[in-house]
Amino acid sequence: MPKAPILIDLKFSGRAAIVQALGQHFHDRPVVDLADGNNAGRDLSDCRYAVLWNPDDDLFERARNLDILFSGGAGVDRVLELEGLPDAPLVRFVDPSLTRRMSEYVVLQCLYHARRMPDYARQQTETHWQQLPPAEAGDFTVGIMGLGELGQDAARKLKVMGFDVIGWSRSKKQIEGVDCFDAEGLDAFLDRTDILVGLLPLTAGTTGIFNRALFEKLSRSGPLGAPVFVNAGRGGSQVEADIVAALESGVLGGVSLDVFASEPLPPASPLWSHERALVTPHIASDTDVRALFAHVARQIARFEAGEPLQHVVDRTAGY
Amino acid sequence: MPKAPILIDLKFSGRAAIVQALGQHFHDRPVVDLADGNNAGRDLSDCRYAVLWNPDDDLFERARNLDILFSGGAGVDRVLELEGLPDAPLVRFVDPSLTRRMSEYVVLQCLYHARRMPDYARQQTETHWQQLPPAEAGDFTVGIMGLGELGQDAARKLKVMGFDVIGWSRSKKQIEGVDCFDAEGLDAFLDRTDILVGLLPLTAGTTGIFNRALFEKLSRSGPLGAPVFVNAGRGGSQVEADIVAALESGVLGGVSLDVFASEPLPPASPLWSHERALVTPHIASDTDVRALFAHVARQIARFEAGEPLQHVVDRTAGY
Ligand SMILES: NC(=O)c1ccc[n+]([C@@H]2O[C@H](COP(=O)([O-])OP(=O)(O)OC[C@H]3O[C@@H](n4cnc5c(N)ncnc54)[C@H](OP(=O)(O)O)[C@@H]3O)[C@@H](O)[C@H]2O)c1
Ligand SMILES: NC(=O)c1ccc[n+]([C@@H]2O[C@H](COP(=O)([O-])OP(=O)(O)OC[C@H]3O[C@@H](n4cnc5c(N)ncnc54)[C@H](OP(=O)(O)O)[C@@H]3O)[C@@H](O)[C@H]2O)c1
Repeated sequence: MPKAPILIDLKFSGRAAIVQALGQHFHDRPVVDLADGNNAGRDLSDCRYAVLWNPDDDLFERARNLDILFSGGAGVDRVLELEGLPDAPLVRFVDPSLTRRMSEYVVLQCLYHARRMPDYARQQTETHWQQLPPAEAGDFTVGIMGLGELGQDAARKLKVMGFDVIGWSRSKKQIEGVDCFDAEGLDAFLDRTDILVGLLPLTAGTTGIFNRALFEKLSRSGPLGAPVFVNAGRGGSQVEADIVAALESGVLGGVSLDVFASEPLPPASPLWSHERALVTPHIASDTDVRALFAHVARQIARFEAGEPLQHVVDRTAGY
Repeated sequence: MPKAPILIDLKFSGRAAIVQALGQHFHDRPVVDLADGNNAGRDLSDCRYAVLWNPDDDLFERARNLDILFSGGAGVDRVLELEGLPDAPLVRFVDPSLTRRMSEYVVLQCLYHARRMPDYARQQTETHWQQLPPAEAGDFTVGIMGLGELGQDAARKLKVMGFDVIGWSRSKKQIEGVDCFDAEGLDAFLDRTDILVGLLPLTAGTTGIFNRALFEKLSRSGPLGAPVFVNAGRGGSQVEADIVAALESGVLGGVSLDVFASEPLPPASPLWSHERALVTPHIASDTDVRALFAHVARQIARFEAGEPLQHVVDRTAGY
């Protein structure tokens, strides 16, 4: 019996990379790539697996017999909002390369602020040579909100670099060398945090969580005199007007933001030009489609061998 | 018998830190701090140990009976040039906090370039949201010139972050997971290097070593299309006119420089305003005087117990 077809509807920017990666995967089954015009009117009722990012509006009407849905990204907030989403298991994207790149971003941003690079960058524009009071990683407590796949790897690498690391998550974690807090411990966690790192999924429980009230609870006794906020989770978790106000009033000393409530970040946002804000266009860790397809192939193999799927989203929790 | 006095002549900027740290060390012997006006005319012939950075011109005439000279910094090139430098052992400053801070600087700069932060910084000034072709640490080979106390720790941490790391030094090293080269292997080393990190002492053998001919031998097949140069050793090892020309012609794609041939970097230097140059005022790893005095106290204790001193400079090699 031929193997069941796999449906691809990935509206990513790098089309060539998808075509190339498809050439290297799923040789054992038909691939129905919806970006290929030849598949425009194809009957999709035989497709059992679908890999999705911003799929067509009518996709779930056409592909009525899906056994597994694969999210093209690590965050599933947008997939969960899709109209007509079937009740099949939704598998999110988890991959060592994704995790590694996120930790690169987090370590880079924490070092950037800890080592006063925003100040030195300003001095450079002013042709001004001045050694500022030194600060090193060990003088800072980095507090990570979200201790999942990404948060735990970032914690480990921040520790190697010398930072003191603490963490917060829904269920309390046990991580060697990292003091962990759960919901009840939030205030105590914030009170110790000099650099706050957001690695939370976007859910009802995390929407707007990074707001003025939270920023005001962060430690002000760190070496920089004011706390720093780094967000690489989802923009919907942050209140951008509060971030701007906190930067203006000194409640926050600096921010690095990779995600925004609305992306691309609108040109009118004051974050673009704020001297203490480092803005990147959601590049902390983008999906590597080769790794995505390898992960999908692994999970399908498990499924067809009767083994349980991994990384299945809990729809009640929303991640 | 009272213990022999220790002489302090440290012309560092942070005077208060020195006074405070002196309050915590050397309680078992007289401390002659030359920055204290009361010591202006004091007979220094009883001093056996001296901790020095930019000492007075007549110091060695006045302190004629020194058993050990301690350099206030990790680099000894300036100490070795002092007129009248006695033939006593010169001990350089080696300390975990110094090493840790240097590795922070190196990892920060390598990630900054690898993750295309110069491009994203420019995009931010242009209110321009665009995801560039992704690059991650694992796509880069970092080549470290100088595998001493600092280079070896930086190598280890760069590897934890995912970089491929190779190294070069006078005597060939054996470092787990790091391909090592010596003088003869320089061209092969440069040919593989996407990001070059300078952690060399300034000696006759390293003066001007980072020049046009060397930059032209670096790999051009890395993800950025042009190699990057990071120098945190000594400015005398680099030819700044060649760096500027290499940036202009695209032989180098970017640089991070913490050290300069002349410091402070003169206002007229084109490096200040070059878009692909990140200039910091020799802050990669400054001396923490508390750690310096702890190290000096340890070495004096060894000496007085008849044990061999550590970190003694080889005056022929110049470091
Ligand atoms: N910027 C980028 O390029 C980029 C790239 C990839 C991913 N991301 C974002 O990063 C997010 C995290 O990824 P991941 O793989 O680490 O996710 P994950 O493995 O699902 O971990 C999520 C973590 O957040 C915690 N959490 C969720 N809701 C919470 C709540 N209401 N209160 C407290 N803690 C809560 C979870 O707690 P428990 O441990 O108790 O479940 C878990 O520790 C993704 O959802 C995605 O949105 C961004
Ligand atoms: N920017 C800052 O804030 C800052 C702070 C501290 C130090 N520094 C600078 O960093 C330098 C390195 O410090 P360190 O503690 O790592 O020194 P180190 O332990 O003496 O190591 C020096 C390394 O350079 C190698 N080397 C020396 N001359 C060489 C030559 N001609 N050719 C090839 N390799 C050569 C040595 O080779 P062998 O292993 O074969 O001897 C050794 O691996 C210091 O000298 C100082 O100038 C800068």
